[in-house]
Amino acid sequence: MRLRNKPWAKDFIQKHPEILIPNPEEFKGKWNEVFGNDHPLHIEVGSGKGQFIVGMALANPEINYIGIELYDKVIVKALQKALEAGSPPNLRLLKVNAEELENFFQKNEVDRIYLNFSDPWPKKRHAKRRLTHERFLRIYESILVDGGEIHFKTDNRGLFEYSLVSMSQYGMVLNEVSLDLHANEPEDNIRTEYEEKFSALGQPIYRLEAQFAKRNGG
Amino acid sequence: MRLRNKPWAKDFIQKHPEILIPNPEEFKGKWNEVFGNDHPLHIEVGSGKGQFIVGMALANPEINYIGIELYDKVIVKALQKALEAGSPPNLRLLKVNAEELENFFQKNEVDRIYLNFSDPWPKKRHAKRRLTHERFLRIYESILVDGGEIHFKTDNRGLFEYSLVSMSQYGMVLNEVSLDLHANEPEDNIRTEYEEKFSALGQPIYRLEAQFAKRNGG
Repeated sequence: MRLRNKPWAKDFIQKHPEILIPNPEEFKGKWNEVFGNDHPLHIEVGSGKGQFIVGMALANPEINYIGIELYDKVIVKALQKALEAGSPPNLRLLKVNAEELENFFQKNEVDRIYLNFSDPWPKKRHAKRRLTHERFLRIYESILVDGGEIHFKTDNRGLFEYSLVSMSQYGMVLNEVSLDLHANEPEDNIRTEYEEKFSALGQPIYRLEAQFAKRNGG
Repeated sequence: MRLRNKPWAKDFIQKHPEILIPNPEEFKGKWNEVFGNDHPLHIEVGSGKGQFIVGMALANPEINYIGIELYDKVIVKALQKALEAGSPPNLRLLKVNAEELENFFQKNEVDRIYLNFSDPWPKKRHAKRRLTHERFLRIYESILVDGGEIHFKTDNRGLFEYSLVSMSQYGMVLNEVSLDLHANEPEDNIRTEYEEKFSALGQPIYRLEAQFAKRNGG
């Protein structure tokens, strides 16, 4: 099945509220009820066509996953992948804006955030739009558990350089850095669509794990 | 002039105490007297054959430089370069071990530390020998001014990955990161001998500027 135009996509999305949650603000602070368990919650901000988040959900049934994506024609492909994978019970999708994450997740509700191949916004005047800009780090910190981590992959050198500095200056600590992930690819690495494409072109894939500072007394 | 054997080198070194200081422990806390001014003091730990430190001394006459190197047959080449450059008045060399820097520099005496193409010590069991291991960071911090910086270049991916994590976990903050320095080489970049060699082979040169945390009340 191919979905070429938006009306089609919108229709398809509305038919699957069990995966692509239409009213996510109602579940702020209650995602464990949606999943029916107390497993950790990992979210991917900018989940694109869904290969990563669907793959992670299948590989790690003891973790709950929510993929966040803004665009209809992209998230509809993630929805298709989820359906083709048999609608994993530990996976949901939200069509929302990363700037509004605090409307859908409570403080301490999220255990880890994944960022994969985010838009690099290479022009300096667009730096505020990068998903590793301090204004987003502030949002991530506000919904993550104390000392929560961001796991970030990209093929974009400029964005990776920027993100190392941005996270460090925000007060985050780097726990892992790889400047050529596929030179020594971990067995549990789930590739995104972009990752496969750019790696095939011989470009290095950069990856980091960074942790927010523990709160006072944490 | 070529210096192929050690006796030659030793002899040559002893003939130039005005550049290669034979008794550096006597000048701990007094390097401004040696240079005869109060200019900032920048040191390079592991200055090898000296192209960087001599180039920096020539390019920045208002900064004092000290190159530190452990091996006779290497430092003798730095000494030759210094002589060929007309013995810049703002340059000295020390044949000492990086582990003993605190014997030669007082707290707050050094304004910046350069590390260039340090030995990567790729085996995990040799991690303690890497010049960005926490035991060296502790030494650097103890001789640097409050909030002092380390500027570090290498072509070695493993060492750079390790150093980003080591410095971050030590509490340092990254102010600059480049994962391909020569793709956009700054005008004031002084290349080391290694840098020229490995860049010519098409390998990316990695570079960072990291800053120690300000002390309490600093």
